[in-house]
Amino acid sequence: MSGRLYVVGLGPADERWLTLEAQQALAEAQDVIGYEPYVARVPLREGQTRLASDNRVEIDRAREALARTQSGRVVAVVSGGDPGVFAMAAAVFEAVEAGAPEWRSLDIRVIPGVSAMQAAAARLGAPLGHDFCAISLSDNLKPWDVIEKRLEHAARGDFVMALYNPASRARPTRIADAFALLRRFLPGETFVGLAKSVGREKEAFILTQLDRVDPAQVDMATLVIIGARGTKRIARDDARDWVYTSRKAG
Amino acid sequence: MSGRLYVVGLGPADERWLTLEAQQALAEAQDVIGYEPYVARVPLREGQTRLASDNRVEIDRAREALARTQSGRVVAVVSGGDPGVFAMAAAVFEAVEAGAPEWRSLDIRVIPGVSAMQAAAARLGAPLGHDFCAISLSDNLKPWDVIEKRLEHAARGDFVMALYNPASRARPTRIADAFALLRRFLPGETFVGLAKSVGREKEAFILTQLDRVDPAQVDMATLVIIGARGTKRIARDDARDWVYTSRKAG
Repeated sequence: MSGRLYVVGLGPADERWLTLEAQQALAEAQDVIGYEPYVARVPLREGQTRLASDNRVEIDRAREALARTQSGRVVAVVSGGDPGVFAMAAAVFEAVEAGAPEWRSLDIRVIPGVSAMQAAAARLGAPLGHDFCAISLSDNLKPWDVIEKRLEHAARGDFVMALYNPASRARPTRIADAFALLRRFLPGETFVGLAKSVGREKEAFILTQLDRVDPAQVDMATLVIIGARGTKRIARDDARDWVYTSRKAG
Repeated sequence: MSGRLYVVGLGPADERWLTLEAQQALAEAQDVIGYEPYVARVPLREGQTRLASDNRVEIDRAREALARTQSGRVVAVVSGGDPGVFAMAAAVFEAVEAGAPEWRSLDIRVIPGVSAMQAAAARLGAPLGHDFCAISLSDNLKPWDVIEKRLEHAARGDFVMALYNPASRARPTRIADAFALLRRFLPGETFVGLAKSVGREKEAFILTQLDRVDPAQVDMATLVIIGARGTKRIARDDARDWVYTSRKAG
């Protein structure tokens, strides 16, 4: 008998963004597999096996999960945010495609979740309120010139942008390069929001604009939002401004 | 004493995609306001006022919610999906900006949710697994040439696309026009997925490609996904193919 593989989105922080479907999958799983900080967020359940690994080994982790599922286990691969957005789901299907033909018959269910850009946007107001792009600045798997091309088209199309993976130890200048590129296509007063550690104790926001943003303020736990022409700030006396993108064209 | 306004995402269908935070907000609300089918999805609670309205009056609904909050009520404006993605949150902040100065001091909390594209993607595999755009084809508030420009840049940037509001009674040819435009920039074999009524009883999926898709199969409850060069189909003998977008460049 073969088992079942859940690819579960935990949302960006604590359990407040867990869906009912995700809770049920985690309760049913015999094995929980994922990057260590995500596995640590799954409520302990007696008899459940927990396999925590490093962030770099996504494909190995996917293969391990698929092999266990094939052997009859109910497995949950856990991701922060939404597993379908720059997270484990694509790695699982990549492993299926390259793997044993029997894996194509497995019962695989992706459980969507709230992604980091959505939690960040909710805190700021509604900056993703109209057409937007989500772009990963990680050049581990794609060349930097592909990222540059996408940033350029997102800017020329007047999209709001949510930039994931804006910094890494390997390429600390990544976000500075992206800001420099965007300044060639967008006005200096374009809204830039830095959302740091959303939903966690260290949560912090910086509201600024393209010609003033300091790339040094962007770290690995930052989600960067670039506004479109229709993105507006609502000034407030006693609190952080609200930011939203008009449903009309900028 | 002023109240509190929750702008709550219910997810795309039944309660399986409700987050804990959304459940808490709905339990706390004295007044629930929204488009009728969404209000109908909120569990009944004794003493809670329910104000259901037509889909067209988003700004009126937002103003009503803000006025009630100002008067001291705890109000939930409910949206399908994520209120921050083509839904009520932008309308609320638009109303704040244009409204009474006191509204800027209100306690407004946006509660993110799973958006239709995420639920559709989860069912198909991981088609949004890499850089993607979300575009509304509604030309109620923006001119069609802005939409055309965005589709063109999304295509030239090799983004996966999630197309919201692909059809309406007022403009039934909208999606046909969009497909025709995309065919000028993308190969005929580009993946197209039609996800209909995701999570509901009538749920259905059509997996096809750009030179074969039939616009007549797209209705108001359809979410359209256009693949990028890196989007792949995994053939399966006994079930619907899986679709995912490679994390590498196409």
